[in-house]
Amino acid sequence: MSEYLDHAGAGVSIGLVETRNFTFADPPGEIILESGSRLGPVTIAYETYGRLNREKDNAILICHALSGDAHVAGYHDPEDTKPGWWEHMVGPGKGIDTNRYFVICSNILGSCMGSTGPCTCNPNTAEPYALDFPVVTIGDMVNVQKALVHFLGIDVLHAVVGGSIGGMQVLEWCVRFPEMVKSAIPLATTIRHSALAIAFNEVARQAIMADPNWNNGKYYDGPKPDLGLAVARMIGHITYLSDDSMRHKFGRRLQDKSDFSFNFDADFQVESYLRYQGKKFVERFDANSFLYITKAADYFDLAREYGDGSDVDAFSGATAKVLLISFTSDWLYPTYQSRDIVKALKKNGLDVSFCEIEAKWGHDAFLLPNERMTSMIKGFLSHVGD
Amino acid sequence: MSEYLDHAGAGVSIGLVETRNFTFADPPGEIILESGSRLGPVTIAYETYGRLNREKDNAILICHALSGDAHVAGYHDPEDTKPGWWEHMVGPGKGIDTNRYFVICSNILGSCMGSTGPCTCNPNTAEPYALDFPVVTIGDMVNVQKALVHFLGIDVLHAVVGGSIGGMQVLEWCVRFPEMVKSAIPLATTIRHSALAIAFNEVARQAIMADPNWNNGKYYDGPKPDLGLAVARMIGHITYLSDDSMRHKFGRRLQDKSDFSFNFDADFQVESYLRYQGKKFVERFDANSFLYITKAADYFDLAREYGDGSDVDAFSGATAKVLLISFTSDWLYPTYQSRDIVKALKKNGLDVSFCEIEAKWGHDAFLLPNERMTSMIKGFLSHVGD
Repeated sequence: MSEYLDHAGAGVSIGLVETRNFTFADPPGEIILESGSRLGPVTIAYETYGRLNREKDNAILICHALSGDAHVAGYHDPEDTKPGWWEHMVGPGKGIDTNRYFVICSNILGSCMGSTGPCTCNPNTAEPYALDFPVVTIGDMVNVQKALVHFLGIDVLHAVVGGSIGGMQVLEWCVRFPEMVKSAIPLATTIRHSALAIAFNEVARQAIMADPNWNNGKYYDGPKPDLGLAVARMIGHITYLSDDSMRHKFGRRLQDKSDFSFNFDADFQVESYLRYQGKKFVERFDANSFLYITKAADYFDLAREYGDGSDVDAFSGATAKVLLISFTSDWLYPTYQSRDIVKALKKNGLDVSFCEIEAKWGHDAFLLPNERMTSMIKGFLSHVGD
Repeated sequence: MSEYLDHAGAGVSIGLVETRNFTFADPPGEIILESGSRLGPVTIAYETYGRLNREKDNAILICHALSGDAHVAGYHDPEDTKPGWWEHMVGPGKGIDTNRYFVICSNILGSCMGSTGPCTCNPNTAEPYALDFPVVTIGDMVNVQKALVHFLGIDVLHAVVGGSIGGMQVLEWCVRFPEMVKSAIPLATTIRHSALAIAFNEVARQAIMADPNWNNGKYYDGPKPDLGLAVARMIGHITYLSDDSMRHKFGRRLQDKSDFSFNFDADFQVESYLRYQGKKFVERFDANSFLYITKAADYFDLAREYGDGSDVDAFSGATAKVLLISFTSDWLYPTYQSRDIVKALKKNGLDVSFCEIEAKWGHDAFLLPNERMTSMIKGFLSHVGD
């Protein structure tokens, strides 16, 4: 089912991992999306870590955020300098202990990191889908994850874990497939995308679509909308940080000079940082995927989808034990939004733990090492069956 | 010096006003900027309201923010449907009472609303300056305002008033020309631009400069970088609002439809609003001016300029009586930044009043009608001499 190679003697590392693909084989190889559109075949890139036990009850699904991928931990090959995006959380003996659990992480539908998305070849045209790719939802992402989980021979997940857009998937799992979710850990997330969050996504999308290279999505055989995507990423980056974290990280420190340039170069370190983040991002991410995934996040509203507008009703079918975590300086999905989820879960009589972690790193905090978060997740996972 | 025509019988309106120009006439018609560059001739567009009294001690200077202009109140002609940008504050009997005070408002240096800026004709080339326009500072803006005030025959201002970037000018006045400032009202502002505020400005500038029509600033005889400027404006607009105000104003309400479009149209009202604001802005504002004014704001750091890094030392020469106002939901220049100013002023023994107004409208609150703000300003102005 899954295998991994330990780095010789590394002990604490997961070692070399590989991304695998799961392609829906059911004829006609199509899925029906929430919009009513059909899409197929659908390939889902995924990685697994640890071993599925005989009872098949030790599987944990990790859901990634906007720009993440299936590569949650470990290294792809010995030359890799950067491990997976949640290396400090996932591995032998870590918060999500791969000695105990069989960890699955798959790339979300609509992304560009191996799973089917707008940059995938459209079998009908033999060209990338581009904007012919249908708009997908968080629910669609979860549907294909469920197909993968079944393909891996698993009926019930010990836990579903994820932050931000990953946390939306976790919540969606709880209400869409309650019988498959023993426990859930939504981090730094929300039950519905706020006007502020939609606004930031919309401006980022407008930045991409304003780039003439975007060309209505058809840029795969020409120059890419790098400048637009870089601006979109910079906007995102600001929302992932916080006033406090930016003051600590950059303040008003100047970049490589002692005085102002009196031109439009990057005078301040924070400017260089953003330009660098934008530039780096366009090397690895597809602009159309950015459009589709942000749109899915904007559409996310569990109460609308499942509760006729009521948060409480939305969770009426949920059964999972839940650990919810928010972060004090997260202004993209502020703590009050987590509290709304807690209230709705409790009103349904669910077993909910909630913690707001004091952290100055803004929304990004869920991705950064934090002892308290790690020990809470570890403790919660080991008592799911209690 | 100034004149205005009352709307027949209107009584509460300032009536028709006109914008006048003041061009520096001193040979060689140049000013020396903080960068060391020379600029000239310099024209400053301004409006005045009310009458300067015999003692010439009833003048109030109003400083506008990023996209404002000299037209602070009243109407330019009978067809105008929109009065000046602070109509509810400035006029006969209003918070800034034009029956009592002689009000001056001038367009800032670097803008595109009548004062010299990057879209002005460069006398050396007979073409618009574009990026040959020198980078200006808040200090430079205040220097030319001072020249205008002297030109109007005024030695001492009863008050200098302004919010946001206008508030920076107010603070700069207090330390640069203390002998000319009897009182000061900085609103929703800061003593130095934070990393967060710089970050937003930088991304907005990048959006403009990413537009190929920007053409390194030389677009005045061709297509303008409208798409880039629109994105820049949308980014700005988000920072002027707040999570709370956007939830109240838009929530997740859909635009002209009952369900999601499942495409990249504007589904939500907040998206339509931002697109509209972006589109409207490009009709009236110059992209290069946006670059220059945001850069001036980013450079603003009174402590660096006057206090060798110390807020307290920066105000050591200030003498004005000060009324400072911040707004609870302003996350661009949050209240703690106003408190820093209050502390520094008090340590210099200055007479300071401070009020944080409960308002959900974010940074924009200073521009919106607010009875408490109006009565505080009115009361403060009438007791300046006490």
